[in-house]
Amino acid sequence: MRPSGRQINEMRNVTIETNVTMHAEGSCLIKCGNTHVLCTATIDDRVPPFLKNSGLGWVTAEYGMLPRATNTRMRREAKEGQSGRTQEIQRLIGRSLRAGVDRVALGERQIIVDCDVIQADGGTRCASITGGWVALKLAVLKLMKTGQIISDPLVDPVAAISCGIYAGQEVLDLDYPEDSEAGVDGNFVMTGGRLVEVQMSAEGATFSRAQMDGLLGLAEKGVAELTALQLAAVR
Amino acid sequence: MRPSGRQINEMRNVTIETNVTMHAEGSCLIKCGNTHVLCTATIDDRVPPFLKNSGLGWVTAEYGMLPRATNTRMRREAKEGQSGRTQEIQRLIGRSLRAGVDRVALGERQIIVDCDVIQADGGTRCASITGGWVALKLAVLKLMKTGQIISDPLVDPVAAISCGIYAGQEVLDLDYPEDSEAGVDGNFVMTGGRLVEVQMSAEGATFSRAQMDGLLGLAEKGVAELTALQLAAVR
Amino acid sequence: MRPSGRQINEMRNVTIETNVTMHAEGSCLIKCGNTHVLCTATIDDRVPPFLKNSGLGWVTAEYGMLPRATNTRMRREAKEGQSGRTQEIQRLIGRSLRAGVDRVALGERQIIVDCDVIQADGGTRCASITGGWVALKLAVLKLMKTGQIISDPLVDPVAAISCGIYAGQEVLDLDYPEDSEAGVDGNFVMTGGRLVEVQMSAEGATFSRAQMDGLLGLAEKGVAELTALQLAAVR
Amino acid sequence: MRPSGRQINEMRNVTIETNVTMHAEGSCLIKCGNTHVLCTATIDDRVPPFLKNSGLGWVTAEYGMLPRATNTRMRREAKEGQSGRTQEIQRLIGRSLRAGVDRVALGERQIIVDCDVIQADGGTRCASITGGWVALKLAVLKLMKTGQIISDPLVDPVAAISCGIYAGQEVLDLDYPEDSEAGVDGNFVMTGGRLVEVQMSAEGATFSRAQMDGLLGLAEKGVAELTALQLAAVR
Amino acid sequence: MRPSGRQINEMRNVTIETNVTMHAEGSCLIKCGNTHVLCTATIDDRVPPFLKNSGLGWVTAEYGMLPRATNTRMRREAKEGQSGRTQEIQRLIGRSLRAGVDRVALGERQIIVDCDVIQADGGTRCASITGGWVALKLAVLKLMKTGQIISDPLVDPVAAISCGIYAGQEVLDLDYPEDSEAGVDGNFVMTGGRLVEVQMSAEGATFSRAQMDGLLGLAEKGVAELTALQLAAVR
Amino acid sequence: MRPSGRQINEMRNVTIETNVTMHAEGSCLIKCGNTHVLCTATIDDRVPPFLKNSGLGWVTAEYGMLPRATNTRMRREAKEGQSGRTQEIQRLIGRSLRAGVDRVALGERQIIVDCDVIQADGGTRCASITGGWVALKLAVLKLMKTGQIISDPLVDPVAAISCGIYAGQEVLDLDYPEDSEAGVDGNFVMTGGRLVEVQMSAEGATFSRAQMDGLLGLAEKGVAELTALQLAAVR
Repeated sequence: MRPSGRQINEMRNVTIETNVTMHAEGSCLIKCGNTHVLCTATIDDRVPPFLKNSGLGWVTAEYGMLPRATNTRMRREAKEGQSGRTQEIQRLIGRSLRAGVDRVALGERQIIVDCDVIQADGGTRCASITGGWVALKLAVLKLMKTGQIISDPLVDPVAAISCGIYAGQEVLDLDYPEDSEAGVDGNFVMTGGRLVEVQMSAEGATFSRAQMDGLLGLAEKGVAELTALQLAAVR
Repeated sequence: MRPSGRQINEMRNVTIETNVTMHAEGSCLIKCGNTHVLCTATIDDRVPPFLKNSGLGWVTAEYGMLPRATNTRMRREAKEGQSGRTQEIQRLIGRSLRAGVDRVALGERQIIVDCDVIQADGGTRCASITGGWVALKLAVLKLMKTGQIISDPLVDPVAAISCGIYAGQEVLDLDYPEDSEAGVDGNFVMTGGRLVEVQMSAEGATFSRAQMDGLLGLAEKGVAELTALQLAAVR
Repeated sequence: MRPSGRQINEMRNVTIETNVTMHAEGSCLIKCGNTHVLCTATIDDRVPPFLKNSGLGWVTAEYGMLPRATNTRMRREAKEGQSGRTQEIQRLIGRSLRAGVDRVALGERQIIVDCDVIQADGGTRCASITGGWVALKLAVLKLMKTGQIISDPLVDPVAAISCGIYAGQEVLDLDYPEDSEAGVDGNFVMTGGRLVEVQMSAEGATFSRAQMDGLLGLAEKGVAELTALQLAAVR
Repeated sequence: MRPSGRQINEMRNVTIETNVTMHAEGSCLIKCGNTHVLCTATIDDRVPPFLKNSGLGWVTAEYGMLPRATNTRMRREAKEGQSGRTQEIQRLIGRSLRAGVDRVALGERQIIVDCDVIQADGGTRCASITGGWVALKLAVLKLMKTGQIISDPLVDPVAAISCGIYAGQEVLDLDYPEDSEAGVDGNFVMTGGRLVEVQMSAEGATFSRAQMDGLLGLAEKGVAELTALQLAAVR
Repeated sequence: MRPSGRQINEMRNVTIETNVTMHAEGSCLIKCGNTHVLCTATIDDRVPPFLKNSGLGWVTAEYGMLPRATNTRMRREAKEGQSGRTQEIQRLIGRSLRAGVDRVALGERQIIVDCDVIQADGGTRCASITGGWVALKLAVLKLMKTGQIISDPLVDPVAAISCGIYAGQEVLDLDYPEDSEAGVDGNFVMTGGRLVEVQMSAEGATFSRAQMDGLLGLAEKGVAELTALQLAAVR
Repeated sequence: MRPSGRQINEMRNVTIETNVTMHAEGSCLIKCGNTHVLCTATIDDRVPPFLKNSGLGWVTAEYGMLPRATNTRMRREAKEGQSGRTQEIQRLIGRSLRAGVDRVALGERQIIVDCDVIQADGGTRCASITGGWVALKLAVLKLMKTGQIISDPLVDPVAAISCGIYAGQEVLDLDYPEDSEAGVDGNFVMTGGRLVEVQMSAEGATFSRAQMDGLLGLAEKGVAELTALQLAAVR
């Protein structure tokens, strides 16, 4: 039934290659099927103004897409400014990653996670969160190795997966052909078995509480699989 | 327990005054406690380019806040451009209202719903959706009265309410003092007893599926009450 | 002769409702006929850089119009930036209000007056000045009550009225139907019986010194009436 | 009494050199004392959208100042956008010039008048209007010579002069040292012995009707002298 | 003598991997040592307005750098707009590629070449030109295969290399450590054994005609090697 | 053969008038045939942030063109921002002038050179560099006269000239009719007999090393003539 032939509760093949750039303190290239996102983490000694002298750390994220990451070339945002959609996504990534951070243990420093979509086939914001956590963790491990951080501020991985209602069925991990047809779809961010963000959205459609529940179940399954891959990648 | 002394499943007092401006085709002033939003609906014969000659209608929304609607004066967005938060909110309002529109019945025209917050005390995006639907309905009724629309494109009201976890308890309709303290809060948009949008978000916190379920239950109660007020307002 | 049936030297009905928002230090809703402007005054301890450590205060103004305040919906300035017209108006409001302020008595603080047009029917800049002064005065009274200001920096009210040549006749207080037809119109700002600003402008027309004199006479009459209303409002 | 030693009703020396650039259809360099403005007029066959197929012409103006036209170097507007002051000035120039144009006789074309201040010493907007009219006239004469225009759309010159209250006295044509001290100053635009624009403005001061009258008298004297120079220049 | 231990006339190791993205009509990942650039070519049926109905084709380029492509993270251009440096580089890439295009043979269509720097270590604009030509060629070959183009509009490859004076010696292909020290450096673009662009630039230094000649000789050597790699890549 | 009748190695007539504005510390009006550029130098005690407390000086440049400096009126950059071309030119001017500056001798101060094109007929960037050096020198001489600078930081003049291949021939100092036809043209900046910048560029053409050499020879001749004029101007 699914264009890709996958089962309704089957994720795409996911790989996470780490340390892919020479400059960043942490980095990975995450591939969720044909969606490829390069995630880098940059350590910055300066925190945003509202945290000066607070002793608390900060994690923020920025998101971008190469113009021809998509089937039809998109305008380059550098020429016309970030769209509302881009800003919404990078706020989500930052909020999600912070949910898994002990900001006291991190200490007064900032880590900036850049998520740049090299190739897009649906689910780029979820791949960014999942891969972004890996880049973040690798940067933190570097700080721990040099003794700049004593106790690990990142306990459980933060991972995200999309689910939606496609052709009347609740399915896990929508690719672009499904996403562009689905009237209802959403993103679920979890850490340590608990929810961090739930963003269900319908365009010209609605959904019941029972469907909502079914999607939550699928998301739990997907996030469990992603978490195992994240832990393997940073080991 | 709540700063306002409300029960955990008790909404603020809501009033909807209709036809409050002389120029707009539909308008209302919705007051959800101390949150006051002026909603106007403008009928435009031109649709966005992607709908030209499609026979389909469109509903879109814009959102703004007067600089001193808040306790501390905010910068005027006209001077520095819309923030990412503003864009995210107005996309949500537009998407939510469209979920309750039969775009064939509306015909090839656009209705623009402006939601301007006169005074803010938490829950401005939900008040905008609830009041925005009333303004939209009043504009549509005007089109039906003149025969420009034959069958009503708006069947069930679209309404929205916030819920969150405050002081460890699931509560309905957060005001600003609660919202600024709650680690977990979200917005629920519903129509005809079904869900349209669910946006749960945690800042430095997480939540369980059981809590999610509890919040959904509160939201259903709140939306039912709002729907009754909406129907009374447009009668 | 006038579309509204008013006498040539007759102002529209003016009301000033004070303390209309919960957050601002001073506020009023001024209605000049169908022109409704919400004015709020915000006290800010910081002055502009050029006044640091000068001991002098500052009063500035910002002006905005809700998109559907007008008969035809206007673009939202937050999306495309303030127009030249908007900037010109808010500079006028700020300059006018400052003419009535003893900046030594005010002390080194700034008061920002926001004038937001809820509904427009001509004369919005004059209503903003007249209502803006009321909001400013209420904020100053609050500072005096708490002893932060000792001697009142606002002696005489500042008020403004438009006059113009409509259908060959000099008339007081143009509403929109008159304003859009008048070849010559202007705004007169006064305080304590003296002039602060005179802005006469002709589009495709000219006027004589005698006509100029007639308009000045009408303006004096109008401002006297507005001043009485301002004093009543802040009492 | 005046820094320059001029009489209170004495203008600075004014010269108007015409045809100073090889490309523009009309041009002049006007020098009002040390204020030097290069004015060029460009004929454009296209009118603004709101005049298409109306048969009516249009005149508009743009204003700029070289960064080091002033005593202290100013930011280059090309880098940060036109200030509100610049926009206000160019709207004034355009409106003033249009007051002297028979737009039917001009025919459906646009003339753009660029006024660029090479050196500033007060009164740049008035010099721009006075010199702008000369450039405009020269461009129109070119259109008449080639038969593209039959009857002259510019009958009387449009000229402008500043007046103000300096050291308690009403004076004509303020230079920069006077302008920066004067609490009250204004610009008067006239054509054919009648007024087009009056912009009196006070910063931290007020003025009486009698003073207003005195300034109008000075302005009439100054404009008469400028008009003679304009007519000589275009002959 | 060189930080990398290379001979003064020795290029870094260069590899060109083709068809690296699923969406673009042509693509490659070029690696010049540690400088990695992803180049994609997009075919667009629409040409820029000035070429409509001319029968001529167009090739243009855009250039970007991921924020952490460099040792120190750079601001994301999407947030603040393209810098002058970025615009200068992408104009150079476009001009260089067009030098090798028969625009009549290309036909009235546009090919947009995006060059995005994934990792930077000096020489990104040269790598972009060299890799950009490969992506362009692959897109053109696709058009020839489907018969949309009959005769090949790309005869000789266009390639570019940097040269400079480092520690007093003329060296080929500067990497970042050399580039940041060199007082004189430049970029040479060639096609078919002839020059297309020469951009020699000195910061706080100068150079003689003899040195200029030496650098031209090095560039010829480097371009010859790059050309062989380009031809191999597109075969 | 040349539209102007000049020999292939013949420059246009060049004049340099100094001290043309009353405010700038150094200024000149350079005329290269019909290309007229006003150059002013402003001394600023503040250096850019990266030079604070370094003891080193800085020279930077800004470039602009009046809207009707050209045959067809151009958009005013103040309205839409500096084009990439403008930024590229002003970076070139600044870099070129700095090549002739001893930044230690200059001391920790900045000189800003503004080059504004009053009338354009080709070669504006070269005229800006040549005239900009004169304005810079005059400002420096003022600093030396007052003893703020002891040893002259400007030894040899910096001058620039364009050369190109027009109608198959290498020619010196292209004017606009030649520049718009030439497939290959470039700018050469020199000081003290040595090269500072070489920018050869071809649009739809290429050139040989022999031609490059011929152009360098022409440039040397032209720069020698310009240098003599510069020295005469500042004496």
